[in-house]
Amino acid sequence: MALQGNAAVGQSGGPTMVINASLAGVIEAAREMNEIEHLYGALNGMEGLLDERFIDLFRENDELIEAIRYRPSSALGTCRLKPNEQDLKRAMEVFMAHNIRYFFYIGGDDSQTACHALSELAQTRDWEMSLVGVPKTVDNDLVITDNCPGFGSAARFAASAVQYLACDAEAFGNLEVIEIMGRNAGWLTGATALGRREDRDAPHLCYLPEVTVDPDKFLADCHEAYDKYGYLVVTVSEGFSFAESEVATTSGKVDEFGHARLGGVAQALGDMVEEELGVRGRFDRLGNMQRCFAMAQSQVDLDEAYAVGDSAVRRACAGETDVMITIQRKSNDPFEFECETTSLSSVAGRTRVVPDQLINDEQNGITEAFVDYARPLISPRAEMPPALPKYPRLQKFPIAPKLGDYQR
Amino acid sequence: MALQGNAAVGQSGGPTMVINASLAGVIEAAREMNEIEHLYGALNGMEGLLDERFIDLFRENDELIEAIRYRPSSALGTCRLKPNEQDLKRAMEVFMAHNIRYFFYIGGDDSQTACHALSELAQTRDWEMSLVGVPKTVDNDLVITDNCPGFGSAARFAASAVQYLACDAEAFGNLEVIEIMGRNAGWLTGATALGRREDRDAPHLCYLPEVTVDPDKFLADCHEAYDKYGYLVVTVSEGFSFAESEVATTSGKVDEFGHARLGGVAQALGDMVEEELGVRGRFDRLGNMQRCFAMAQSQVDLDEAYAVGDSAVRRACAGETDVMITIQRKSNDPFEFECETTSLSSVAGRTRVVPDQLINDEQNGITEAFVDYARPLISPRAEMPPALPKYPRLQKFPIAPKLGDYQR
Repeated sequence: MALQGNAAVGQSGGPTMVINASLAGVIEAAREMNEIEHLYGALNGMEGLLDERFIDLFRENDELIEAIRYRPSSALGTCRLKPNEQDLKRAMEVFMAHNIRYFFYIGGDDSQTACHALSELAQTRDWEMSLVGVPKTVDNDLVITDNCPGFGSAARFAASAVQYLACDAEAFGNLEVIEIMGRNAGWLTGATALGRREDRDAPHLCYLPEVTVDPDKFLADCHEAYDKYGYLVVTVSEGFSFAESEVATTSGKVDEFGHARLGGVAQALGDMVEEELGVRGRFDRLGNMQRCFAMAQSQVDLDEAYAVGDSAVRRACAGETDVMITIQRKSNDPFEFECETTSLSSVAGRTRVVPDQLINDEQNGITEAFVDYARPLISPRAEMPPALPKYPRLQKFPIAPKLGDYQR
Repeated sequence: MALQGNAAVGQSGGPTMVINASLAGVIEAAREMNEIEHLYGALNGMEGLLDERFIDLFRENDELIEAIRYRPSSALGTCRLKPNEQDLKRAMEVFMAHNIRYFFYIGGDDSQTACHALSELAQTRDWEMSLVGVPKTVDNDLVITDNCPGFGSAARFAASAVQYLACDAEAFGNLEVIEIMGRNAGWLTGATALGRREDRDAPHLCYLPEVTVDPDKFLADCHEAYDKYGYLVVTVSEGFSFAESEVATTSGKVDEFGHARLGGVAQALGDMVEEELGVRGRFDRLGNMQRCFAMAQSQVDLDEAYAVGDSAVRRACAGETDVMITIQRKSNDPFEFECETTSLSSVAGRTRVVPDQLINDEQNGITEAFVDYARPLISPRAEMPPALPKYPRLQKFPIAPKLGDYQR
């Protein structure tokens, strides 16, 4: 018999353009389930869960939930908290105090890892509940799933931006270096080449973080392409590195996970190539727009994001737990997919980088196989959003805490 | 009687998202004119004119000209050449050698200045011809005209990007500083506030280059807004400066006009506010996307850009010369405009900054009057462009030089 009780949902990590489509999927499916009495939204993910900052999602009105799926960036707020042992125990206490029997965590690898740890703890505590991870990341670096919701829209933005910037660089006969998100996995950087049709189209050179670059070959390749086409566009991952040297970065800061904050490599490379070629070098950094510039939302991505949220609820209510929803590609043209599941332990702590056969032999671009894989994911929206959309915010009906303050 | 002969058109300075709509307007109107035997496109503006790098625009096919108007960034190529006395003389020789009786120069203030100088020279040389300036600039800083084609689309991009980045900053409870193009005139920076509907919407603070900022008040305003809304979005012009200090810039480089290359102020301010508020600070620089991210093209802007190109040809063939086409606003809702002319001497060398009454009393935002002025200019396109449009390039049928090499 299915578990009767409350459900909670949270969003974690870097937001995407479609993360609220997953939230809408969770809410709308949960409304159909007799097992789920209330659906609590944890504000700022794990932080809100620990602090009992919950809102009552069933009280939000239908039109708002329909509209919120197009709002970029976590409508519930997000966090970068990696829960420690004490945090995990507290989370269990919160689940029990609020009779939470279903937990859906929309996030990337760190969130899936947290969800798995909670799942194991629930078993040792004999608290019967279902925990399901909902995949989300612009980096596309979760294993097993065909792709990650969030990637398609970020890829569509990055590929479009590079085409546009290329028109500007071509008009001047300039060289242009463009910096793309992605510390370890080059899916997004590779996607910048999706708009390329002929050799003279940009990007002429594209460097994924999976490769280390020989500085002499790099400059020779720049020279050759510039001489051939009269302009030069180079896209680089923020994790770009030359062989036998450190990752280029201008920032000495670290983020909440202790990773060095990246950024600045495009500027450094632009200066270097400018000096070498003797033509004006410029750089652009697509920055945070890669995860929120909703004008570039992909319809396939919106559909996938909604589906993984919807599927998480249905799978949980059917008794599955300690799993993450995955996308299974069924056909490429037209693009069709189904949602499946995989155990959280199979994805937690693992990163899917771009395999060798999707990177060209010269190590400065992608192969046709990469294009075939990624192109279906960047379909445009059927109806584009208006000029300056008024994105709704959730009304955020609060749920009273039951445990009181929590000191971290 | 109207002058019979050839016409030439060039594009100059920083491109815009709609500069080729003006080119299409020139080409399509010129085709209708019996006076115009051939229309030459000068490649890279004044540079191509001096070097006789001309293409035959009447040989380009109709569908391509229809399509090229949506291609961002100068299809003829652009330049930043400010012609000296010798250059101007050479240009006259080129006009005479090729029987060029009409010259249309699509550009900003520097281009209008060059066009005016050529106009005066033609008179002293007794070379009867008509020279008409076609306004273009994302900065919106030309005087007399209601607005400049190129501005509306750049404003739509910047306003949209700020709304999107705000969703991301709000999800984290971060502070975010966003750097906007504009050295002296804050039209584009002010336009970042066009999507704001309530006090908690971004940008909370918006600094135009027309104001100098007191550092203490700046930090106090940041503090207050962050405490009130739980996140903070600040937009700043790249020409941002604190009272009694230099413009912040990380670049020691200068451009072709001897101006310091700007950039880096958002990062510097982000670091400063991060330290003061003790929350994570981020920055984004909209960069060159502001003039080429064609997904954000404004329909009004496309219409205006086409109209000024079309009008330039008709006015020239009706005998006007030494003038720039201007936009006259006829009504605000629906937005309607007409093209008029003003003498080139009335616009050359002048910059229209944002007047005091469009900047709020606190000097950290804009007034309703600014919104009323700018909002009609950022209308979305009726039909949005596809995912990764294949923008056409001109086929570029060359015209044989008549003068031979030119040593600058």
